[in-house]
Amino acid sequence: MLRLQDVVSPTLVVDESKARANIQRMAHIAKTHQLIFRPHFKTHQSALVGNWFKEEGVTKITVSNLEMAYYFAQHGWNDITLAIPINIRDLARINRLAAHIKLNLVLDDLETLAQLQAGLEKRCSIYIKLDTGYGRAGIPCNDMAKIKALLHQLAKSQHTVFEGFVWHDGHTYQAHNTNQIRAIRHTTLERLQPLKTFMKELGTQVIFSGGDTPSCSICDDYAGMDEIRPGNFVFYDWMQHSLGSCTSKQIAVAMFCPVLRVYHDRNQVLIHGGAVHFSKESLQSDSKPIYGKIVLPKPDLTWGEPLEMASLISISQEHGLIEGSEEWVKNVKAGQLIGVLPVHSCLTVACMGGYTTTDGQKAVIYKAD
Amino acid sequence: MLRLQDVVSPTLVVDESKARANIQRMAHIAKTHQLIFRPHFKTHQSALVGNWFKEEGVTKITVSNLEMAYYFAQHGWNDITLAIPINIRDLARINRLAAHIKLNLVLDDLETLAQLQAGLEKRCSIYIKLDTGYGRAGIPCNDMAKIKALLHQLAKSQHTVFEGFVWHDGHTYQAHNTNQIRAIRHTTLERLQPLKTFMKELGTQVIFSGGDTPSCSICDDYAGMDEIRPGNFVFYDWMQHSLGSCTSKQIAVAMFCPVLRVYHDRNQVLIHGGAVHFSKESLQSDSKPIYGKIVLPKPDLTWGEPLEMASLISISQEHGLIEGSEEWVKNVKAGQLIGVLPVHSCLTVACMGGYTTTDGQKAVIYKAD
Repeated sequence: MLRLQDVVSPTLVVDESKARANIQRMAHIAKTHQLIFRPHFKTHQSALVGNWFKEEGVTKITVSNLEMAYYFAQHGWNDITLAIPINIRDLARINRLAAHIKLNLVLDDLETLAQLQAGLEKRCSIYIKLDTGYGRAGIPCNDMAKIKALLHQLAKSQHTVFEGFVWHDGHTYQAHNTNQIRAIRHTTLERLQPLKTFMKELGTQVIFSGGDTPSCSICDDYAGMDEIRPGNFVFYDWMQHSLGSCTSKQIAVAMFCPVLRVYHDRNQVLIHGGAVHFSKESLQSDSKPIYGKIVLPKPDLTWGEPLEMASLISISQEHGLIEGSEEWVKNVKAGQLIGVLPVHSCLTVACMGGYTTTDGQKAVIYKAD
Repeated sequence: MLRLQDVVSPTLVVDESKARANIQRMAHIAKTHQLIFRPHFKTHQSALVGNWFKEEGVTKITVSNLEMAYYFAQHGWNDITLAIPINIRDLARINRLAAHIKLNLVLDDLETLAQLQAGLEKRCSIYIKLDTGYGRAGIPCNDMAKIKALLHQLAKSQHTVFEGFVWHDGHTYQAHNTNQIRAIRHTTLERLQPLKTFMKELGTQVIFSGGDTPSCSICDDYAGMDEIRPGNFVFYDWMQHSLGSCTSKQIAVAMFCPVLRVYHDRNQVLIHGGAVHFSKESLQSDSKPIYGKIVLPKPDLTWGEPLEMASLISISQEHGLIEGSEEWVKNVKAGQLIGVLPVHSCLTVACMGGYTTTDGQKAVIYKAD
């Protein structure tokens, strides 16, 4: 079991009780609104945390790439949505995986669907990807002609079983306050109404699946939704905190970093902890970038509340610079540990390849397994 | 051996002949100016590319963390500078490594030095870290009092063998043109003069070691320098190209990404390739961020010149969006491969954990070994 005094290099720690509480809370939200809870596993990326979801009754999951789908299939998950438009070059691996599990694919394009149908040897569930305003992928959700053409084509093969629609309101991450997040959810649900009505008239029971972490964390309106797929909520991070999606107490992940040097003349603290640990995601705070918020580690591997007077203001490959008040900096010592709440936990987990839990377990992510 | 048609997911390719030419060119610069060439291995991070340096006569290297030092020591490198201020928590591992190789440590702090001297069981070479204007780590190079105090303390232990001074002009990365890079180099050499004179008067032969990739790539003035430690030049990247440190033909690394979907209505191309592959380093171009430049892969795993009319303008965890001219986008097809020259090759290599060379070899980096 890891002891604080044994931490000698940047170490990512997951507070198990906070993460479990985050999972329970989101499972409860899904239950309250009678929604299928299909959490996105792209944040924690590990079988260990996957088991915490299992204990809450979760059986359906979402992943962001095919390697991750294979990994979780090997760890007993057998209903997996691959939530990125299908990559037709990867058909051989799709066929292999679809032989073993219920694999749900996402697409938004007639030509790709036809290619898929020509090459698919196993039955897959298909979700049509809709763009409800984010502008990254998907058919604009009011483009009924394109949707109808896809539905028509889908029916042409027994291997492509149409199950529903997915969307991701990634533009909630550009919101400046929680009202804007609620407004995005509201607009999305409104925009989906004509399609809902159309499907109802067709008499086809389908699943409408959406839900990013910001909106699922704070919205009450799920009218017309059947499934949610948030992911980041399991750990949250400083970006979610800035959006108002979580409290600082809900952030379940922190990087413990050794202090290399204190520069009293410029009120800065140099830590071992840089872009290879955190990735390079930043937030703007008073027109300056910040790369993380500072907490103080405790002997049981948990940490205290984020400090008002200190932020990680600059990172290079391995170095991080914290700027703080003179009052705070003067008590920091080279050789001590500082905790950093990351700006983006998904990318931090991906960079680190794993983490330690406060209960002393070591998790490795799919890439490192 | 990897064939282009077998690439099904984001794949980082290193053009071996370009990387070898970059190594040869920098080795030649060092030789011309009678400098020790101690390349930083934080960019390529692999024993395979390390061998390409060995073939050019390189025997001394720089690394950015202790795990990397162990890795290269295991691969036969026995003169390694750990170019980050010493982490006193990591003393046990430092002692173990120093028993096997000439380990050169960097520090800038009296208290840390005293702690090091108290705990060091093996002889280590010590370099004093100077700040010549970057403002990240190091003693301001004109702070003679602090430098003298360190020199005095260094002499108190036989285990801490003073060898010289290191600095890193990371502020060359903020330059807007090559003249500014040259001016930074010039200023640094001027600022170091009093220290040079002082050391000469002391009669102590020491090494003055500096050199970031931008300045080493374009400057002719090395007056007073004994050693250079550039790293990025082995692969270069789009950031270096923007700074004027390299031509596009010298960029030796590209990510081959499958096209998932073409959105003709918004002249955008969705690729599989995101922040978990590239990290999240960006450059500003016309006040908008870009995350990479687009090239077209060739059957021999090389690629053509970067396209004027297309850039990677947005990345999320796994998705990338390329924006291009209508003319260009209309000929892109889902299922084809697109090459992306990364903004920051060091971070991209770290994210990917390895790469394939155009000669078909697979390199894994120190973390993945």
